[in-house]
Amino acid sequence: MRLLTPEHLNPNILNVQYAVRGELAIKAESLRDKLKTGNKTLPFPKVISSNIGNPQQKGLDQKPITFTRQVAALTEWPALAELAPGVFPPDVVARAKELSDEIGSIGAYSHSQGVPFIRQNVARFIEGVFILCGILVVELTSFVERDGYPSDPDHIFLTAGASAGVSLLLSMLIQHSNSGVLIPIPQYPLYTAALAQFNGAPIPYYLDEQQGWSTSVEAVETALKDAVARNVEPKALVIINPGNPTGALLDEATQEQLVKLCEVHSLVLLADEVYQDNLHKRTTHPFTSFKKVVSKLQSEVPLVSFHSTSKGVTGECGRRGGYFECTNLSEDILGLIYKMVSVGLCPPLSGQIGVDSMVRPPRKGEPSYELWKAETDGIHAVLASRTKVMAERLNKLPGVTCVNSPGALYLYPQITLSAKAQAAARAQGKEPDTFYALRLLDRTGICVVPGSGFGQVEGTWHYRVTCLCPGVEDYVTALETFHAEFQAEFGS
Amino acid sequence: MRLLTPEHLNPNILNVQYAVRGELAIKAESLRDKLKTGNKTLPFPKVISSNIGNPQQKGLDQKPITFTRQVAALTEWPALAELAPGVFPPDVVARAKELSDEIGSIGAYSHSQGVPFIRQNVARFIEGVFILCGILVVELTSFVERDGYPSDPDHIFLTAGASAGVSLLLSMLIQHSNSGVLIPIPQYPLYTAALAQFNGAPIPYYLDEQQGWSTSVEAVETALKDAVARNVEPKALVIINPGNPTGALLDEATQEQLVKLCEVHSLVLLADEVYQDNLHKRTTHPFTSFKKVVSKLQSEVPLVSFHSTSKGVTGECGRRGGYFECTNLSEDILGLIYKMVSVGLCPPLSGQIGVDSMVRPPRKGEPSYELWKAETDGIHAVLASRTKVMAERLNKLPGVTCVNSPGALYLYPQITLSAKAQAAARAQGKEPDTFYALRLLDRTGICVVPGSGFGQVEGTWHYRVTCLCPGVEDYVTALETFHAEFQAEFGS
Repeated sequence: MRLLTPEHLNPNILNVQYAVRGELAIKAESLRDKLKTGNKTLPFPKVISSNIGNPQQKGLDQKPITFTRQVAALTEWPALAELAPGVFPPDVVARAKELSDEIGSIGAYSHSQGVPFIRQNVARFIEGVFILCGILVVELTSFVERDGYPSDPDHIFLTAGASAGVSLLLSMLIQHSNSGVLIPIPQYPLYTAALAQFNGAPIPYYLDEQQGWSTSVEAVETALKDAVARNVEPKALVIINPGNPTGALLDEATQEQLVKLCEVHSLVLLADEVYQDNLHKRTTHPFTSFKKVVSKLQSEVPLVSFHSTSKGVTGECGRRGGYFECTNLSEDILGLIYKMVSVGLCPPLSGQIGVDSMVRPPRKGEPSYELWKAETDGIHAVLASRTKVMAERLNKLPGVTCVNSPGALYLYPQITLSAKAQAAARAQGKEPDTFYALRLLDRTGICVVPGSGFGQVEGTWHYRVTCLCPGVEDYVTALETFHAEFQAEFGS
Repeated sequence: MRLLTPEHLNPNILNVQYAVRGELAIKAESLRDKLKTGNKTLPFPKVISSNIGNPQQKGLDQKPITFTRQVAALTEWPALAELAPGVFPPDVVARAKELSDEIGSIGAYSHSQGVPFIRQNVARFIEGVFILCGILVVELTSFVERDGYPSDPDHIFLTAGASAGVSLLLSMLIQHSNSGVLIPIPQYPLYTAALAQFNGAPIPYYLDEQQGWSTSVEAVETALKDAVARNVEPKALVIINPGNPTGALLDEATQEQLVKLCEVHSLVLLADEVYQDNLHKRTTHPFTSFKKVVSKLQSEVPLVSFHSTSKGVTGECGRRGGYFECTNLSEDILGLIYKMVSVGLCPPLSGQIGVDSMVRPPRKGEPSYELWKAETDGIHAVLASRTKVMAERLNKLPGVTCVNSPGALYLYPQITLSAKAQAAARAQGKEPDTFYALRLLDRTGICVVPGSGFGQVEGTWHYRVTCLCPGVEDYVTALETFHAEFQAEFGS
């Protein structure tokens, strides 16, 4: 028989690239295995996976929110409420009972779109107003206040993390091989991966590093013209806000312009808003959802906005929870989305329950509130301070500039690489930033993702590093020492 | 701006059909909503969703396995072991601690392929031999004994249910629009749905209803010839064993022939074995895995076999747990699969932990064993007896014949529909079996899936019904009464 080889497979699959778990991450795993088996030859005691926004991974210090886990444990085994009286706070017991009454067993498939009751809670979170004691009040806690515009639970789809939703929407929107999707550069590589998989054309528009990675309508317009010249039909505009890998936040005026641009060019707006609660400078750099902007403008732009339990202060990546909300999509299209998600049966119930805890955190006065507040405030504060320290110290390094991200979980420093370093990289068949990142990993155990995985202006080099490191002082010192050694070897 | 309509979307999406959660299921949901809001006009007190193998859904009586849920609750909130001393059996505490030590927080992304430790446990389950007290012993419990051939954890991918794995493999194997995949008729409609989505060609081969839905190599050969005549290139053979919707079990001799057929035609063998533990007649109709057959024959056939936590006696559908094992796939291909799953980051941890509990149930002598044994024996017995009763009673109805399934969770009775019934159906633009199923739902609240959703010999009509009903006596009586009324109205 003929053996199965890659050339017998779907050629699109061969073109997929996903750097976040690519060469660097695979090497990091093998180094971790070496350390685990007692290898003493490596120049570092542990591998730090700064390649991925995975706050609760081993070796990092972000603890789960207690409320989230208590609710999850009780819905797993509801008998615990009686078997372990007093162990769970009464609001957790009530919440878990309410969920169990609505859902039944979490071992059953739910509605393919997600449990209707949880979708209602998501809609209320998006609206940002709550019925309290029968009176309509605007919720005052900043975390839950969002748009102030109606949201329809039937237009919300719970998902296994945001990625599943993004892939689904892209798979639907790519009509033929010259269908294009506008993506920011740098971008989160899920977008290029999914476009490669479904044989769509990326239409890159560049963010402005000099302006703190800002998005300009002009840059999008330029990309649109280029696309038309290449005979690519633009179908959708992807905006990542807060940015990944940039951490930048859009201002409302730019958002309004972008919505109008989508109107003019009949684009679907895909708003990746998974970092909406990772705001380090809320006063100067607030988050405004595209749903709010579209609603305020009474625009007819078809909008799909994505959120996740993996980021924010929840950081429950392994739970695979998330949702997307559709605005201005016809019943026909919603029916097709339903059909497609029904083939996968339903999103994981543990993720759905995680979404519920994210959109319905404890309220002031409830037994779990104080602990929840202390835990979430702590995580916000640590992330903001770590980001600030890392950006400041990276900016002091010769040949490094780094936008001090106001949001998300990352920094995306630019590194100047000498002709000698570039030549050494090419000699190994590597991109120069990959070469830098591989050496960083070999020398320090710190795993970052080279900028070539996210995209960058030709001739510039970057890497993405998460701000989730344990012990920022030692960590940044390691980055500094490595950089100095690299420059000593290859010149600045 | 131009509104987004279905004709702007990927045309493959429009062709996807998934009857299990299609027209009937959507109507059933709306009837359930009506009952919930107090509607008294319907002729039944509740809707019974017999359209889907969802054992723990509300209104059905299958309880979760206590061991599974205890382990899950403790990994959600490990502090419970100390906060609620004595509530969890010691083997559960030890198991949860072992998992937590290996995994860290279940709120972290795991390895994209699944937690390595859990994959090792899956490999041991597949092998069916265990190291006990340092001595290699063959495990005697029939549940865990499987193949007796080696299994490599690096060739196992944990998934969000089996469906996710099946879709991924099909998306990779379909190279171009005339790539074809052999699928049984009747089939589980995930296969036709995924083939439509990825623009591959189904190559239907027919199961023999007269021979208890048996699979014959001749039927596959015939289908292959037809494919070649249509200029379709066969890439893979799908076998569902135990069958869905048929419940049939393959005998080992046929399996060997099928493996040899795959060798001759260079086909990838996709073995959907999610019902491997749903065996109602273990003595006369045992389950043999294709991994075992391929290993025994020392065949080079590329094999991917799928398993799930959703079926068996676990029935944890909402957990979205499953795995596939690859045999005879090159490192190249495994690397491509890894790359594709890495884009989705990782399968849900709750599903992965569910897989661990499924492949490592309590052993004789351990504190949780007796309860686990009683619970699983009970579920096996109820499913077997209900299947038998339903098949016997359905067979007694005029115009109905029904293979008494030795496995899985379903029956797939054939119904004779009169010319008058067929005409009435066509007048409504419905397939005759859809017409029958819709009336069944309207009159009794029982939701089944018409055979047209699974495929059937032209001019024959069937429906798939799960054997998960509560109170089999009332349930079968309702089916009988409806059938008699239908025949009275439309003739036999």
